[in-house]
Amino acid sequence: MFLLILFFFSLLSCSCASVQDFCVADLSLPHGPAGYPCKNPAKVTVDDFVYSALGVAGNTNNLIKTAVTTAFTAQFPGLNGLGLSLARADIAVGGVVPMHTHPGANEVIFMVKGTITAGFISSANTVYLKTLNEGDTMIFPQGLLHFAVNSGNTTALAIVSFSSPNPGLQFLNYALFANNLPSELVEKTTFLDDAQVKKLKAALGGTG
Amino acid sequence: MFLLILFFFSLLSCSCASVQDFCVADLSLPHGPAGYPCKNPAKVTVDDFVYSALGVAGNTNNLIKTAVTTAFTAQFPGLNGLGLSLARADIAVGGVVPMHTHPGANEVIFMVKGTITAGFISSANTVYLKTLNEGDTMIFPQGLLHFAVNSGNTTALAIVSFSSPNPGLQFLNYALFANNLPSELVEKTTFLDDAQVKKLKAALGGTG
Amino acid sequence: MFLLILFFFSLLSCSCASVQDFCVADLSLPHGPAGYPCKNPAKVTVDDFVYSALGVAGNTNNLIKTAVTTAFTAQFPGLNGLGLSLARADIAVGGVVPMHTHPGANEVIFMVKGTITAGFISSANTVYLKTLNEGDTMIFPQGLLHFAVNSGNTTALAIVSFSSPNPGLQFLNYALFANNLPSELVEKTTFLDDAQVKKLKAALGGTG
Amino acid sequence: MFLLILFFFSLLSCSCASVQDFCVADLSLPHGPAGYPCKNPAKVTVDDFVYSALGVAGNTNNLIKTAVTTAFTAQFPGLNGLGLSLARADIAVGGVVPMHTHPGANEVIFMVKGTITAGFISSANTVYLKTLNEGDTMIFPQGLLHFAVNSGNTTALAIVSFSSPNPGLQFLNYALFANNLPSELVEKTTFLDDAQVKKLKAALGGTG
Amino acid sequence: MFLLILFFFSLLSCSCASVQDFCVADLSLPHGPAGYPCKNPAKVTVDDFVYSALGVAGNTNNLIKTAVTTAFTAQFPGLNGLGLSLARADIAVGGVVPMHTHPGANEVIFMVKGTITAGFISSANTVYLKTLNEGDTMIFPQGLLHFAVNSGNTTALAIVSFSSPNPGLQFLNYALFANNLPSELVEKTTFLDDAQVKKLKAALGGTG
Amino acid sequence: MFLLILFFFSLLSCSCASVQDFCVADLSLPHGPAGYPCKNPAKVTVDDFVYSALGVAGNTNNLIKTAVTTAFTAQFPGLNGLGLSLARADIAVGGVVPMHTHPGANEVIFMVKGTITAGFISSANTVYLKTLNEGDTMIFPQGLLHFAVNSGNTTALAIVSFSSPNPGLQFLNYALFANNLPSELVEKTTFLDDAQVKKLKAALGGTG
Repeated sequence: MFLLILFFFSLLSCSCASVQDFCVADLSLPHGPAGYPCKNPAKVTVDDFVYSALGVAGNTNNLIKTAVTTAFTAQFPGLNGLGLSLARADIAVGGVVPMHTHPGANEVIFMVKGTITAGFISSANTVYLKTLNEGDTMIFPQGLLHFAVNSGNTTALAIVSFSSPNPGLQFLNYALFANNLPSELVEKTTFLDDAQVKKLKAALGGTG
Repeated sequence: MFLLILFFFSLLSCSCASVQDFCVADLSLPHGPAGYPCKNPAKVTVDDFVYSALGVAGNTNNLIKTAVTTAFTAQFPGLNGLGLSLARADIAVGGVVPMHTHPGANEVIFMVKGTITAGFISSANTVYLKTLNEGDTMIFPQGLLHFAVNSGNTTALAIVSFSSPNPGLQFLNYALFANNLPSELVEKTTFLDDAQVKKLKAALGGTG
Repeated sequence: MFLLILFFFSLLSCSCASVQDFCVADLSLPHGPAGYPCKNPAKVTVDDFVYSALGVAGNTNNLIKTAVTTAFTAQFPGLNGLGLSLARADIAVGGVVPMHTHPGANEVIFMVKGTITAGFISSANTVYLKTLNEGDTMIFPQGLLHFAVNSGNTTALAIVSFSSPNPGLQFLNYALFANNLPSELVEKTTFLDDAQVKKLKAALGGTG
Repeated sequence: MFLLILFFFSLLSCSCASVQDFCVADLSLPHGPAGYPCKNPAKVTVDDFVYSALGVAGNTNNLIKTAVTTAFTAQFPGLNGLGLSLARADIAVGGVVPMHTHPGANEVIFMVKGTITAGFISSANTVYLKTLNEGDTMIFPQGLLHFAVNSGNTTALAIVSFSSPNPGLQFLNYALFANNLPSELVEKTTFLDDAQVKKLKAALGGTG
Repeated sequence: MFLLILFFFSLLSCSCASVQDFCVADLSLPHGPAGYPCKNPAKVTVDDFVYSALGVAGNTNNLIKTAVTTAFTAQFPGLNGLGLSLARADIAVGGVVPMHTHPGANEVIFMVKGTITAGFISSANTVYLKTLNEGDTMIFPQGLLHFAVNSGNTTALAIVSFSSPNPGLQFLNYALFANNLPSELVEKTTFLDDAQVKKLKAALGGTG
Repeated sequence: MFLLILFFFSLLSCSCASVQDFCVADLSLPHGPAGYPCKNPAKVTVDDFVYSALGVAGNTNNLIKTAVTTAFTAQFPGLNGLGLSLARADIAVGGVVPMHTHPGANEVIFMVKGTITAGFISSANTVYLKTLNEGDTMIFPQGLLHFAVNSGNTTALAIVSFSSPNPGLQFLNYALFANNLPSELVEKTTFLDDAQVKKLKAALGGTG
């Protein structure tokens, strides 16, 4: 038996010490196209693989009555390089997840509770719209505009999965109206009226 | 305005009709290394993107007091080619998710309710073990042995995300004892005793 | 020498007849997540690798004074599986390429002639805006909103490269206003005014 | 409205600051298999996404009467990780793009002006040869020998797209004759005559 | 125990029957960019995963005194979609593996017996040349010209691994001289003399 | 001729110096999801691409009478980023390669000499079992349990190829019994008897 133990230890010391089953992000180093460099495996503990912030409801006390809490690589470094991430969406009664895209990932939501009406729009301009109840799952393909509204009478909770640890998130309103993109360009490229653009720029802190 | 409409229609008729934002599996055709051929996009409806079976608790009235319900491509064809899938695990009091691996995907679980003790073992033979409560999230890297037991006093529910629509699932006990792999080979390659192997083969329907 | 010839012929008959250097799409078969099945290599000719439609200026006699001509897989089947595609954009004086995204590819444009002002908006909401002249090249990352306007006094011509043979193309206006997405949902999820939504729905053929 | 603004700012501060829509190369750090580490996004400006050197004709006053100007990652760091790159080829009357391969990318050329005869050779040894005029596009699959000659009576200009920001470039003549690979080995492995090898080694600066 | 058995059977009937651990090629169907469609898993046997032809020495009774036997997807369909393949090279005394590339894969050889001198040439035109003895391993990166000659006094045997089931194989001589590529174009794009080109075309069966 | 030389040198100085045909690992830097950062190409020599340790038989003087010698990135840094690696297995008479998985790669073995009985078990619980003789090749798909025993009367030697430079290696016995995973959890999740678990923990150095 002693020899067997020795065998295994020597075998593993030569081949497994170098194996990389995971790559917990070292956020202090610059990332690259495939993600962050890995934290030294010898310093990785189980806590690098566990994250608790998705267990806490976001604060929906805002105008859209919705909170989105993400567990992407930046929040949950253990996901680095693993090809998936999570988020939670709390949507109070009357709440809205505004029109947005994820440039870098496909998405699937699971309704933990409540009722929402959700949809996405394809490149062929077709609308895929559905009312989802507790236990329902829905797919939103990568890069396509999608949205949800609480269509029930309780706060809704959805757990969201993405096919990348870095899905990206572009809110349409914020992209158009909350920066210094000149109003004239917004109007020319969206056909929105000048008054409309200026009203939303004012509301969202945009200039130009 | 009429010209504008015409413009958009002609533009889209030449470029977007051919765009493939998604690839709902046509399960009647043979799959390939990247997944199934796609259902004709013209016949795709929102119901191809919505799945409700994860909303139904599995039957835990069995010896391991656990039920796993999968939403992989075969059950939810809309996931084909999208790089992710889901499952739910219902684990009754005293229940166990036996030691297993997913050969084809990383996994993240989210605890919807209850308390489990879960762990995985790395190539370097380190155990990463944690008690998870409602709202906790934990990572299980691809291909590594992992497991969970209900360590609370209520039925636990976990929503599980995978980084592939086809993660695979190999239960250790079933792989070793529930087929015709000769007992002699099981014993030689696992160092388990003959009596142990034969007892489990009998329990799990194995032969040889 | 005769033996040498024989050697080469026999060598190639066993190993190279099966090699697949390319995969010209057979558009008559259903595509899959990685593209279309390949046309029989024995029937492939040089004309499968040559495409001439990008040499013809599009008709810019429309309200936006712009024409986009694509060479994606559906138009140029030789690109199938090769990870890139092209398009040309003709933008007359006063013309606009409306706000849009490509859900499935990064983009680089090369200005063959003329002057445009182009920009994209990142997930962090930053605007990257530049006036481009003949010979300039600009990057538009995958899935991010971008646009261009002719800011010169001649028709502009840009050759556009994508990092996928199937980049997708979602025009913001068309997605929001040219289908049956209910006005109420558009308004709730974009914060646009009802009058604005209805005006653009009317112009673009939308209902609901 | 103030609350709405606050909502958006707080939402974005937690989720989008960490999103990586692009990865401009920091050429001062060592690259990895997927490319270079990214420049700090806070220091990225629009000029990282714009490149002007492809607008300048290369100097064709050399024996092959051709100039190739590349916009790969090393010249245009904004392409890092984006899966595509560009180049321009200026081919004067009588000019030649010598036989070469790109080990790391598929290629598509677009003829901006002039006429060339271009071709590639497949693993099955088939020649795909075509005369291309202004506006024509042609594919050269990854790793296969290809070439072009100006077959018109004006300088030709082609814009070239690659499916990688790091396509590689191996000129046959330079590989065989412009280094210290012993003549004997060149001759044995190419069946070229000794006089031929030595003549080209002398011309191209090779030794051995 | 009976319930446990039942549990496992029902669990597996719902989730594992659909899992695709492998994708043995069905060579009768058209392949796609990711490989061939899979043979029905129910008809797959262990013989789909076993191949014996690499155990047989190739016939080196030819002018180059070398035989290459491939186990690519077309010969060994079990490799389809698995990202690797094998070959064996038998190189008799005085034998040569002529200058060639693999457009689609990196390569590593292992010398089972004998001595060869092998080399490859990088894009930067550097020669990496080494004499390899029994037990040595050498890397040849994707798409780069490489070669070997038997530099010992016994027949050499190498087992070759590729990073793709479809590596491709382009012999330089065959590409240049064994087809209908016009001599004038060969000469212009390689700087070889007319006499040299015609001599090799005659030897290798080329025309034009 | 002088001009031609100048042409080539200037051409290469602008385009090829930046080309990355390979990425020899710099093991002194932290790796990332795609592998290690690359050693400076100017310091790379042919010895970075050659490895001799697979030519030396491992020491099989241990209880399982088997030695596995790996050439993964950590031992052979030239493989970094190339998508493949090698190993050798020496299996003395009566020797065993215990049940194990490779979480990160598909595997193909080639029998250089001797006779083994090898097998793997699929997610569908099917056993694929075969006796392999000199010259036979067998596939073991990624992440699935597999094993081998010497079933001949001489020492067997297998050369093993993997579809990743970092395949991982998880021995079942070591994962279950050679660490601090509590016996109670091992028993609950594997259905092994307490006596069996404690016997193997004692033999393999496990605690708990």
